[in-house]
Amino acid sequence: MSLLIIGSIAFDTIETPIDKVEDTLGGSATYICLAAGYFSKPNYIVGVVGDDFKSEHIEMLEKHNTDLQGLQIIKGGKTFRWGGRYHENLNDRDTLFTELNVFETFNPQIPNNLRKTEFVLLGNIDPPLQMNVLNQIESPKFIFCDTMNLWIDIRKKELLEVMEKVDMLVINDSESKMISGEKNIFKAAEYIQKIGPKYLIIKKGEHGAILFYEDKMFSIPAFPLKQISDPTGAGDSFLGGLAGYVARTNDISFKNIKKGIVYGTCMASFCVEHFSTKGLENLSEDEIENRFKEMKELTEF
Amino acid sequence: MSLLIIGSIAFDTIETPIDKVEDTLGGSATYICLAAGYFSKPNYIVGVVGDDFKSEHIEMLEKHNTDLQGLQIIKGGKTFRWGGRYHENLNDRDTLFTELNVFETFNPQIPNNLRKTEFVLLGNIDPPLQMNVLNQIESPKFIFCDTMNLWIDIRKKELLEVMEKVDMLVINDSESKMISGEKNIFKAAEYIQKIGPKYLIIKKGEHGAILFYEDKMFSIPAFPLKQISDPTGAGDSFLGGLAGYVARTNDISFKNIKKGIVYGTCMASFCVEHFSTKGLENLSEDEIENRFKEMKELTEF
Repeated sequence: MSLLIIGSIAFDTIETPIDKVEDTLGGSATYICLAAGYFSKPNYIVGVVGDDFKSEHIEMLEKHNTDLQGLQIIKGGKTFRWGGRYHENLNDRDTLFTELNVFETFNPQIPNNLRKTEFVLLGNIDPPLQMNVLNQIESPKFIFCDTMNLWIDIRKKELLEVMEKVDMLVINDSESKMISGEKNIFKAAEYIQKIGPKYLIIKKGEHGAILFYEDKMFSIPAFPLKQISDPTGAGDSFLGGLAGYVARTNDISFKNIKKGIVYGTCMASFCVEHFSTKGLENLSEDEIENRFKEMKELTEF
Repeated sequence: MSLLIIGSIAFDTIETPIDKVEDTLGGSATYICLAAGYFSKPNYIVGVVGDDFKSEHIEMLEKHNTDLQGLQIIKGGKTFRWGGRYHENLNDRDTLFTELNVFETFNPQIPNNLRKTEFVLLGNIDPPLQMNVLNQIESPKFIFCDTMNLWIDIRKKELLEVMEKVDMLVINDSESKMISGEKNIFKAAEYIQKIGPKYLIIKKGEHGAILFYEDKMFSIPAFPLKQISDPTGAGDSFLGGLAGYVARTNDISFKNIKKGIVYGTCMASFCVEHFSTKGLENLSEDEIENRFKEMKELTEF
């Protein structure tokens, strides 16, 4: 099955303790498409770029099973740009600049022929835009939703409305505490599950993630890495791998979503081993399956 | 099989955001014995107390399969006392007071008939005292060793000598970074494995623990708890449950030690649910087995 992916497409300038890159391909939808493309296809990207978006980027996305008919290319416009510098610990980062450019007036339009796509992924964008997408799609089977601390801060009401309508919310531990006002993530999860999403994933960065579904839980560590080059896109790759796997298998059971989370964990680990999207390009099926097996060995008793 | 346990026995005064208790039974050897007593027996405790140590404490330890022939009771002496206050996050704590009392001149003496005990657990005490114990025991099969940041700071040379002689070292993530000078725990583990211990466990508090053995790893989350009453003794209960299980099964394979770590995780969770040693008293076999099963369901895919 296919996946409909809504999110940002950007040029990133990234500094980590190891290296620095400028104007490299980034954005939540980009990472999600690349990771998902190893599982489901074609995946329809809905987003906006300027005419500075190069043919090499389009080719790279297409090579990874992305269909670009929902991509708006604004003549004379500039693509969204973001710059960030990671701290020594690689967990914290400072935003150096944000130039919204064409993203400032982004209004996602789902092409008519894509409105019946059964698997929909709302990347991290302003909740009213996420709701706008929800109003355009018809009879979705499963909706994945990401968000961030900014929206919890300034768009909580709208975000809660979106949360009631989606099947899975993916957030990190500090966001779960912000939404719920609880200090304990298991209490936070209980609070959020009452609002709506059947499935809730709380990500804990280097400590892995926890899935909540009804009264069940599934805990998975991050893939062990001795060196992280660039954490940018880790969460999006996780979500892309998960959603792509679930869409390909067309199975939204707890058991299958657990497997999807393991694949998501593998994709996040490939992502952070290299700068920008490099770690997600040109992976082989064997590389992904071997990492999945390593996750099994790491956790099995 | 039996376990020989060396460590502190104390009266603790503990403040957490939830409650406060004074002069309650504590100390590393106490928690280790209580947790191990659900698996191996009898377990020989080697430690020192004053004559303020009450018969009810002796009875409670005996009831949990502890043999006290190695316990020194100093006439006219006072038992070691420690006071601590936990922060709101329950991860950090301030030491309010430390009265070493009879522990100040503690010199562990292993009774002759116990020197051939095959499983030995060196609780967190001054490394020269740990070495003193190692010099007294004969043909041990497996030696577990705990330590703390203080000894890494002021007794690193002596600690490294102990590390060369033990089979398993159990430390937390910040201690692994202190010993190795590495910021990444997988690099830290690689450094420490070269020093000696065949098995290394790095504990990550609420995020679980990782076992390292040759080129293999095993990652386990903490048991999910919505409320923690008192974190005191969590690490000791973990180690006690693990060592007790390994001693009872008399199997030091990687596979069996993984199971032991899961039992240790369960014992740590029982410990922190209540103040002081209360959570480790009077558990049933079913309660422990059910928690083990829950850990399996939590991690299986």
